[in-house]
Amino acid sequence: MTAAPQLAADGRLRHLLTLDGLPSALIENLLDDAARLREQWHTQRALPQHLAGRTVVNLFFEASTRTRTSFDLAARRLGALVVNFDIASSSTSKGETTEDTLATLEAMDADAFVVRHKENGTPAQLAAHARQAAILNAGDGNRAHPTQGLLDLLTIRDRKGRVDGLNVVICGDIRHSRVARSDVHGLHALGAGSVALCGPASMLPAREEFPGCRISDDFDAALTDADVVIMLRIQRERISDLPDLDVDSYHARYGLSMQRLARARRDALVMHPGPINRGVEIASAVADGAQSAILDQVANGVFVRMAALTRLLAR
Amino acid sequence: MTAAPQLAADGRLRHLLTLDGLPSALIENLLDDAARLREQWHTQRALPQHLAGRTVVNLFFEASTRTRTSFDLAARRLGALVVNFDIASSSTSKGETTEDTLATLEAMDADAFVVRHKENGTPAQLAAHARQAAILNAGDGNRAHPTQGLLDLLTIRDRKGRVDGLNVVICGDIRHSRVARSDVHGLHALGAGSVALCGPASMLPAREEFPGCRISDDFDAALTDADVVIMLRIQRERISDLPDLDVDSYHARYGLSMQRLARARRDALVMHPGPINRGVEIASAVADGAQSAILDQVANGVFVRMAALTRLLAR
Amino acid sequence: MTAAPQLAADGRLRHLLTLDGLPSALIENLLDDAARLREQWHTQRALPQHLAGRTVVNLFFEASTRTRTSFDLAARRLGALVVNFDIASSSTSKGETTEDTLATLEAMDADAFVVRHKENGTPAQLAAHARQAAILNAGDGNRAHPTQGLLDLLTIRDRKGRVDGLNVVICGDIRHSRVARSDVHGLHALGAGSVALCGPASMLPAREEFPGCRISDDFDAALTDADVVIMLRIQRERISDLPDLDVDSYHARYGLSMQRLARARRDALVMHPGPINRGVEIASAVADGAQSAILDQVANGVFVRMAALTRLLAR
Repeated sequence: MTAAPQLAADGRLRHLLTLDGLPSALIENLLDDAARLREQWHTQRALPQHLAGRTVVNLFFEASTRTRTSFDLAARRLGALVVNFDIASSSTSKGETTEDTLATLEAMDADAFVVRHKENGTPAQLAAHARQAAILNAGDGNRAHPTQGLLDLLTIRDRKGRVDGLNVVICGDIRHSRVARSDVHGLHALGAGSVALCGPASMLPAREEFPGCRISDDFDAALTDADVVIMLRIQRERISDLPDLDVDSYHARYGLSMQRLARARRDALVMHPGPINRGVEIASAVADGAQSAILDQVANGVFVRMAALTRLLAR
Repeated sequence: MTAAPQLAADGRLRHLLTLDGLPSALIENLLDDAARLREQWHTQRALPQHLAGRTVVNLFFEASTRTRTSFDLAARRLGALVVNFDIASSSTSKGETTEDTLATLEAMDADAFVVRHKENGTPAQLAAHARQAAILNAGDGNRAHPTQGLLDLLTIRDRKGRVDGLNVVICGDIRHSRVARSDVHGLHALGAGSVALCGPASMLPAREEFPGCRISDDFDAALTDADVVIMLRIQRERISDLPDLDVDSYHARYGLSMQRLARARRDALVMHPGPINRGVEIASAVADGAQSAILDQVANGVFVRMAALTRLLAR
Repeated sequence: MTAAPQLAADGRLRHLLTLDGLPSALIENLLDDAARLREQWHTQRALPQHLAGRTVVNLFFEASTRTRTSFDLAARRLGALVVNFDIASSSTSKGETTEDTLATLEAMDADAFVVRHKENGTPAQLAAHARQAAILNAGDGNRAHPTQGLLDLLTIRDRKGRVDGLNVVICGDIRHSRVARSDVHGLHALGAGSVALCGPASMLPAREEFPGCRISDDFDAALTDADVVIMLRIQRERISDLPDLDVDSYHARYGLSMQRLARARRDALVMHPGPINRGVEIASAVADGAQSAILDQVANGVFVRMAALTRLLAR
């Protein structure tokens, strides 16, 4: 998938499907917009109602209360009406095609769809069928989670002053992670110095999927000189499926403890997309420590989603 | 059921339960109001907040995301607060009577209830118990779906310039269809020239239920001179229950293909309440073709619901 | 649990967890605020938007559509955004701790959490972890349901002119009832003359839990001179678990019939937190009769919740 379908002929953002191929200037603009909205919110607890008269539909084929709530608050604080479309009791479950559900909701003047789906490509497929509405990918399969990528970039830029030249390590189940993919696309776009991907061999991706990244199963070695460490959520179920892995041994080799964090740069930033598994991929002392930016990430998530919705929908 | 209970002594609309017996002037007024709201929305993307301070409760005993979303958007775009009352986790499931649930929500100053129920008569029964609140029937059993009837009339009037004198064919499971019943009531009220009801014998209604309609199992013959063809949704489950029917043979005799549509008048309008089963009751080429008004129906649904809510609730 | 954690150092209300230990002046102020908001609503059907820019999260670990709707309407009619956080599909079900869920939602600038939980103490525990947000207890275990206590006090004060000096009887499953506990705390704070607790022996509490109350299994005797009779909801399941109890014998001894009500003072007020079981703990003639204040309680519930939210959140 190229980024082309998400840009209009004039270069304007038409949909937000992936950070892959998105011009770095556009990414920087979105981060600047988010920071400006954040500033306004913090000083006034009120925002310009850019989305008044607009309708945003949350179309979550996979449950995610956290991400849905973040999009929901972003849209409503800017004045949009939000519809949480309940897939389970919807026409989709009565045999209607997803494209017909989209067309039906567009006919009711829905302006944007926030889509989460376990299959790669569903948001792009809906974007191909949308007449006027904008599609925002809230995570598809292991492919992309662009607003997570944006909020991670904003968090790094805030705390480190820049992204350019930084050494970033991402550790966990890279193979199945859309977060890792969107982070890598965003980090490369903004000129990160190096990106290392770590995890047990069974969780590492095909090398050709991540050009320009170092890939290794040695987390300790990868941490040397790291400016930013992004830990991914490990699903306990997935671990117990693996013959030679248990939670304790995972934590021993790939969990981020205070001791292990000491291998990175002194002021290394610790990040995690949440929800965290304390004592599995991350120790509580690290998650709650001074280097952790985990709650900043959550806070920034609302503002990058506001920025994306405004750019896609504001007149 | 007569229409009397839904009109106040002064002839004002008190509830919207059925189109059966509703004065044709009132129906025309509702369509005019809907068209006016639509015009305002399309030019300004903003509407007078007729329902500010009003509370509308969606009381769906039967799931219907599509209809509920349409009512929801109609109410909220006019400034109402909408509560989606979750029957499954409500007091009703703790043994509270529906009348007590109604009284409780009325005590919280709910102004209107949008009710969908699989049993005939539930909305009328709630209307009999309501102290002040208005009841809007969003479909009860096979009896009535008055806002569907209104949106179909508005769509026909828009595209044909009138309803008076038109030949209308309705095809599908007439026996179990509340849409067919409300359409017939509305079409007769506005002076349709003829109404023909078609379907396999097992899906045809008792003749006395539909006075003034032609009833036949010969869809091809019925299509001659048709100005409007309304296709009903077929539930695949229902077909497979029938001994001598399968989806293919249903489509062969009762599905609307381009070829079969050619039997109707050249400019015949094709309608469907949705969600559609492509290749069962309607061919994709017809559903997506120039004669199809299916998405117009969806769009008009929001505006007729706005008109009904405004008439019932505005001060 | 003392009330201390819910008051800030300056005596201001910081959380609303229980009426136990809450200063009576503060209780009276909340009732006055509620009555003032009710007056404004009834005359103008519009309220000052005290909560504009504020976000309230409904965190119901135990389903309760009635209470949740009451809080929801209270918050939204004052201009707040309300998020109904769906526990079932949330991160909590993915192994996230409740404290991390709280921290995550606080990072999204949630200002208040309305919490219902079947375990005693969950709201207090969340209050201990909250950074800025206010916690409102919407019922925890059998411990407290403070807004129910407040709405009962307001209802009594409205209909009797005072609480001071009144004789109050509470009948039902006292042992498991958070409503009884919050009512008793409130009644004692406002100087009720006597409080009697009645029910079958298996439903009576330990004496030391209710200092200052009469406890008895003789409902008929307790009713003499009663000014207020509060009937509690009986769960049919709980009755059928008891060896020597069935619904009919329960009703015969502890159900409030017209005949039994005649034992109380002529103008005794009848109350019930709802949903009612007609013919079990209360006869329909009583529930619907002139002495019943059941729907007043429901109406008042919205206004005391508005008063509490305003006090906790308004700037």
